[in-house]
Amino acid sequence: MASKLLVDIHTHVYLPRYAALLRSRSAVPFIRSSATHDGKLDERLLILDHEPSGGRPVGPQYWDREEKLKFMDKHGIDVSVVSTANPWLDFLPASQAHTLAAELNEDLEEYCSTSPNVQDVPIRRLYGFGLLPLVPEITTASLLDTVKQVSKLPHLRGLIMGTRGVGKGLDDMALDPIWAAIEAAGLVVFIHPHYGVDAKAWGDMDNGHVLPLALGFPFETTIATTRLILSGVLDRFPSLRLLLAHSGGTLPQLSSRLASCIDHDPVVASRLKHDARYYLGKLYVDAVAYGPEELGFVSDVIARSGRYEAGTSDFKAANRSLGSQRMLFGTDHPFFPPLSSTEKWKSVVENSEAIDAVQGWSQADKDGVRGGNAISLFNLAE
Amino acid sequence: MASKLLVDIHTHVYLPRYAALLRSRSAVPFIRSSATHDGKLDERLLILDHEPSGGRPVGPQYWDREEKLKFMDKHGIDVSVVSTANPWLDFLPASQAHTLAAELNEDLEEYCSTSPNVQDVPIRRLYGFGLLPLVPEITTASLLDTVKQVSKLPHLRGLIMGTRGVGKGLDDMALDPIWAAIEAAGLVVFIHPHYGVDAKAWGDMDNGHVLPLALGFPFETTIATTRLILSGVLDRFPSLRLLLAHSGGTLPQLSSRLASCIDHDPVVASRLKHDARYYLGKLYVDAVAYGPEELGFVSDVIARSGRYEAGTSDFKAANRSLGSQRMLFGTDHPFFPPLSSTEKWKSVVENSEAIDAVQGWSQADKDGVRGGNAISLFNLAE
Repeated sequence: MASKLLVDIHTHVYLPRYAALLRSRSAVPFIRSSATHDGKLDERLLILDHEPSGGRPVGPQYWDREEKLKFMDKHGIDVSVVSTANPWLDFLPASQAHTLAAELNEDLEEYCSTSPNVQDVPIRRLYGFGLLPLVPEITTASLLDTVKQVSKLPHLRGLIMGTRGVGKGLDDMALDPIWAAIEAAGLVVFIHPHYGVDAKAWGDMDNGHVLPLALGFPFETTIATTRLILSGVLDRFPSLRLLLAHSGGTLPQLSSRLASCIDHDPVVASRLKHDARYYLGKLYVDAVAYGPEELGFVSDVIARSGRYEAGTSDFKAANRSLGSQRMLFGTDHPFFPPLSSTEKWKSVVENSEAIDAVQGWSQADKDGVRGGNAISLFNLAE
Repeated sequence: MASKLLVDIHTHVYLPRYAALLRSRSAVPFIRSSATHDGKLDERLLILDHEPSGGRPVGPQYWDREEKLKFMDKHGIDVSVVSTANPWLDFLPASQAHTLAAELNEDLEEYCSTSPNVQDVPIRRLYGFGLLPLVPEITTASLLDTVKQVSKLPHLRGLIMGTRGVGKGLDDMALDPIWAAIEAAGLVVFIHPHYGVDAKAWGDMDNGHVLPLALGFPFETTIATTRLILSGVLDRFPSLRLLLAHSGGTLPQLSSRLASCIDHDPVVASRLKHDARYYLGKLYVDAVAYGPEELGFVSDVIARSGRYEAGTSDFKAANRSLGSQRMLFGTDHPFFPPLSSTEKWKSVVENSEAIDAVQGWSQADKDGVRGGNAISLFNLAE
């Protein structure tokens, strides 16, 4: 029964405490309020420098748990593993980040633990990813405290983090004790983008948010994960469970090029234990790629990783079923709302239909991606 | 017979005139000469700001035609369509760029036209991509003159260009007359990266050239092509033949996400004639991706484009054979030389083996990618 559930592992919230913080601010990130011409409250979220618009309209779907449950009901989603949306605590001074992380983790535990059960199954409808106060000048002790806090909150099963670490990225050796603690606690780390790449790359034409979202976000995830691989984190912490947003960004398509560039560069050629492609088989990725060919390809790249464990490369076909076991349905709610009023959200329908249409995935594979894999990864049936 | 030839369409040269220019300079891009401790000439190429090394060793393989032919012989390459390596003329003032483009185009014509014939086939061993003086403050008339020059040089069958256009990128409306002239002349445009993305993204760890080459280069190509699509260039010039370096960078993996982001953004949702995925079927890409799963996926993404022409989306399996017809073997020579002495270059062997190992490509498809498609695209059998 539990193996047929639909589980959304990429779904965000600004908890009321966090939304209040955003409303109190006047620099990015913040929520700006005004009145519409007919006197209604108009709230806009600005989260990026040089936001290429007047901000996104925000409302209760960003903070109200009932709205999350309504969205889930509308789309047949049984369980959501909810995470704070970017930019998390990145913009706060260390002391405030530490306190707020602890408070938001408690808030999210409450949000989940008081949620209803899935009908006929001893699983709640909401679980969560906690937050760490990953900001410059935070102490290792503070980060380790928060890992410990999250590991003791029964409905939090992982941590979401951006790509900046404590200011120098995720390949910063100073994070080694944190990776060790996360690995030991068995928490899943959801790596999620926020900053993209330098906006000068987008040029002068007004393309709305398309370039930073469609390209910048996956580039950022790709860079962060590649830097993690190159720093040896996955060699030193082989049981660390990393979940990459947006199907791993572009790392799957660049992984053979990456392996070749490493092989041809005297600085790094001898550094890692394995061919770069091996590490993709150690990762988990969401299935938020909007197309069946993309999902099938990503599962091939995960599946072929074993080929590179020993450094051999026989090219028998990658086993897509095997790769599917590390892929998990997600929606990115409440982002990407439909432009016009529709029964279901197009962004959700696209991701759902893409899973159904992957060539070479059995029904069991698809059920796994839709929910079974998440139930295992997050131990939801415990 | 010609359909069995191996044709390398991604292979670079610094013609002697260009190498002399690089030697005369002391700022990037330049060639720095010194003597080794045993008195030999040591020449190093520096082409990027903040080059993460003392420069790459360069030698005759960069400029000497005999070395190109020896490399081709060693790897069984019958024909090469040679292009000037980055950064082309990007760094020159307009008047010098105009003159040098004309001279280098004549030089390359000579380099090709005096090359031997392929045995038993009326095809030369060398053809070329010409250069345009794409720099700020160049006149449209100068660019159009150069398009005309190249179109009249019988062994030049296309143009290589970077992503900066005349300073504002390839989505600059000022380039419309140039696209029109290139389309009318039937020249193939090889879009090639040089700048990557802002180097701050690579962090503090010394990873050699890996991050800018493995990630930055394909990101740049992806950004440039996406901006071209969003600017409507492919709607306005539907017969323009664009060939993307490195198998299209990461555009294939991001194309469904791109389509979804466009659909959800009020600024661009109604701008283009087709779903973004349609345009990938209008492109040509090299097969320089180093892995069979990557090549198979790229051919799927090209093949599925027809699904999006009418805006419908039935998800029957993409026809990989169809997609293979727009993919072309390349080596990236003389870049990525082996670190140790080997009979054949590993980078070439990897790309060659990857083609052989693609699931779902027939022998005819593989022959097409190895050379047949290039013979058609560049009209080499004429």
